[in-house]
Amino acid sequence: MRVINIPGGFDQISTIWSPHIAGRVNGQEVRLARIEGAFDWHRHAKADEAFFVIKGAFEMHFRENNEERHVPLGEGDFCVVPVGVEHRPIAGAECWIMMIADPGELNTGDVVTQKTKHVLPQL
Amino acid sequence: MRVINIPGGFDQISTIWSPHIAGRVNGQEVRLARIEGAFDWHRHAKADEAFFVIKGAFEMHFRENNEERHVPLGEGDFCVVPVGVEHRPIAGAECWIMMIADPGELNTGDVVTQKTKHVLPQL
Repeated sequence: MRVINIPGGFDQISTIWSPHIAGRVNGQEVRLARIEGAFDWHRHAKADEAFFVIKGAFEMHFRENNEERHVPLGEGDFCVVPVGVEHRPIAGAECWIMMIADPGELNTGDVVTQKTKHVLPQL
Repeated sequence: MRVINIPGGFDQISTIWSPHIAGRVNGQEVRLARIEGAFDWHRHAKADEAFFVIKGAFEMHFRENNEERHVPLGEGDFCVVPVGVEHRPIAGAECWIMMIADPGELNTGDVVTQKTKHVLPQL
């Protein structure tokens, strides 16, 4: 059994918006990412996505029926974006997040942008 | 979308070895538990189980071919116990853990003991 220190794992991540795989459990990926600034709007057509703030803070933006909602998440906060819901995280300063995500889903979900990562490094 | 503060969630857990559900993502449960002392030996026949130390420390004990291994986990450490591997956590002092577990699995896996919880409270 391999033990990985999650805060220490971020030392191995040198760029923002680059999810790294910390582990796999029951078909799901546990991903770590440094985020800063605004991500691209997207949805995951086939899977939920969970977010857990390891360090810092960010806002999750949601868009439904042309209405936007902004939900602030601070250190230690956890939330699940349900399958199909359009969203984008925005971080005013660098923030470290852990995600639980389906390996069949791109980080940018149903769109391909300059922030899309087709292959995720393994920690 | 509901936001739950994970460290704060432990304020709502009054007993040890009582996993509470913090969220559900892609068919998996994110569970929180206060642990202290020794849990019962067990294995999960059909699922992996992930552990993330939120506060404190514990040792994961493994048993294979009549040999035991003890793996220490400190704050911020993460590990996955693969499906079928016999294990038990032991905490010398109270420790707070987050787990990713299959909802079809008892906390005690393939055995029923005094520590078995058939219904897990929702945070």
